[in-house]
Amino acid sequence: MGRYGTSVGMIVHEEQPFNAETGLASLTESLTATDAFYVRGHGAVPEVDPGAWRLRVHGAVERELDLSLATLREAFREREEIATLQCAGNRRAGLIAIRDIPGEAPWGPGATGTATWTGVALADVLALAGPLREAAHVGFEGADVSQEAEPAQRFGGSIPLDKACRHEVLLAWAMNGEPLQPVHGAPLRLVVPGYIGARSVKWLERIEVRSTPWQGYFQNVVYRLLPEDGTPGPGAGMPLGLVALNSDVLSPAEGDTLPAGPVEVRGYAFAGGERYVARVDVSIDGGTSWSQAELLDDLGLWAWRHWRITVDLAPGDHEILVRAWDSSAATQPEHEAALWNPKGYVNNARPRVRVHAADG
Amino acid sequence: MGRYGTSVGMIVHEEQPFNAETGLASLTESLTATDAFYVRGHGAVPEVDPGAWRLRVHGAVERELDLSLATLREAFREREEIATLQCAGNRRAGLIAIRDIPGEAPWGPGATGTATWTGVALADVLALAGPLREAAHVGFEGADVSQEAEPAQRFGGSIPLDKACRHEVLLAWAMNGEPLQPVHGAPLRLVVPGYIGARSVKWLERIEVRSTPWQGYFQNVVYRLLPEDGTPGPGAGMPLGLVALNSDVLSPAEGDTLPAGPVEVRGYAFAGGERYVARVDVSIDGGTSWSQAELLDDLGLWAWRHWRITVDLAPGDHEILVRAWDSSAATQPEHEAALWNPKGYVNNARPRVRVHAADG
Repeated sequence: MGRYGTSVGMIVHEEQPFNAETGLASLTESLTATDAFYVRGHGAVPEVDPGAWRLRVHGAVERELDLSLATLREAFREREEIATLQCAGNRRAGLIAIRDIPGEAPWGPGATGTATWTGVALADVLALAGPLREAAHVGFEGADVSQEAEPAQRFGGSIPLDKACRHEVLLAWAMNGEPLQPVHGAPLRLVVPGYIGARSVKWLERIEVRSTPWQGYFQNVVYRLLPEDGTPGPGAGMPLGLVALNSDVLSPAEGDTLPAGPVEVRGYAFAGGERYVARVDVSIDGGTSWSQAELLDDLGLWAWRHWRITVDLAPGDHEILVRAWDSSAATQPEHEAALWNPKGYVNNARPRVRVHAADG
Repeated sequence: MGRYGTSVGMIVHEEQPFNAETGLASLTESLTATDAFYVRGHGAVPEVDPGAWRLRVHGAVERELDLSLATLREAFREREEIATLQCAGNRRAGLIAIRDIPGEAPWGPGATGTATWTGVALADVLALAGPLREAAHVGFEGADVSQEAEPAQRFGGSIPLDKACRHEVLLAWAMNGEPLQPVHGAPLRLVVPGYIGARSVKWLERIEVRSTPWQGYFQNVVYRLLPEDGTPGPGAGMPLGLVALNSDVLSPAEGDTLPAGPVEVRGYAFAGGERYVARVDVSIDGGTSWSQAELLDDLGLWAWRHWRITVDLAPGDHEILVRAWDSSAATQPEHEAALWNPKGYVNNARPRVRVHAADG
């Protein structure tokens, strides 16, 4: 077990603050084990006393709220959602392979995971506070302080009020049926299904109903898509929010040598929730011909979909190529080269895995 | 003026039933003139007497409704939406250029258009009917009979109840401020912003609240995405519904010869409404470098976005390459070859236009 109770199967990108992705073995499970679930943080895990903890709701509301954990659990209906969280930097390694991205971690396919989240609907709390007419965004601030900003600031972000009022957005105190662990945001984290993980603010202490989007460093500078020749800065590029259609291969792994013959290929795909994964195709001849993979456990709109297919590999070198389709019949872009951006976000290119099939 | 009051600038693909797309000149307007708006029909334009016309609402509802046009206009609040309609076959010509698609019209970029629609919210009518617990889809049938089905059947389709209950879905009697023309579905058509045009059923006469999707020919066989080697048949392939991120170039036109020097490039992009067009990039060096186009009139979530950029063309041959990005930072697939399907739907590949710049 690692420092924060995470499993040894994780790939650690940074110790301080702790940043680690889920290993391939754990990613192949429908629900990701809590101990194997990816961690993306911008500051040290804060020490929060759950007994003293309060959640303040203020800003463009009729009445401010100041809630204890006990009040939150007693005053509102408990809800549960199965939801995938996915970091905007998931699969960044594929972009770094095209051109280096200094200062950003080379996340593989494991900066994503799916869990059952238990808590109350943010919408129910907002309804009690009563958003005023000018309310258009809901901002969130955690207890964690990040030195990446100058001066140091707490992590935060916002989502549109329309999204905040949807039932799938939770204030969660439990993950996979167990109390939230400190590294995952205890005692309370926001869970915004279908949005980049950065919006699911951990160690939540403050909710601010606003007329404008969050102006903090992590929304206004960091999590933005820049043009290839762009420079990060306040408001530069486009803000990230919704998750894009994506997929990756979980087995076999890049560079594997396998016996020639039938080989099972497995992976995940995720379309973000407003759209669902409709089809996954696999090619072993460079995209000339495709076969449809079988879609596995359907965990609902807000969760990824695992898939599998058996392909027949002749002795020699092969490239396994995958493309997912969403319910609008949109599919993934062909190659990372067309997606490279200075901070390495949203690599949703078709995954490619090279393997060697050895003659039996 | 053509047979149905459409302008001479339209490109007619079929006279009987009438099928025609909007020409490039009209597509460059923010709102598409009614006389130039694309027409996609599967049967002859039916003759409907507006005085005798009734709308029946039945199926999984608490009370059936039988409404005259006068009742519909008096009983419900009038609403207006600016919305883009887009045929699933828009830009099919680009797929046909890869491999022929017999029996399907080679639509260019003009099987789409944007208008102001006036009517009442479908949601308000459904609320009066009272969907029962088992209701999950809402089906629609027009007065037009299509000989493409055997035996001949009326055109129809369905959308999920969730979408049907959203305020942007209209039962419309006016287009661009004028009474609906016969060719566009008078006296009443459905308008489903963000869905393929086939769901915006014209000459609407019947609404059926259902537990299952529509089983008619045009939803169960026709408007579906098949794998490359697939064969159309009941339930084969995946149903189309939501519109995929797309864009095209409106000027200059393919094959144009222009004076070398600064050239204005114009086009449209559309992300379907749940997501919006966040950025459009243009390249004149095959995708090595990109410049951001200026996004023009913002007509709201449910409408396309026009864009423009001035590029400097040296004397010689050039290819203008475009990619739109949506608000999830998803972009268009690189090339049609990766998107070919037996019925030629959803070509949303990056547009390419070849021009010659002549030395002054």
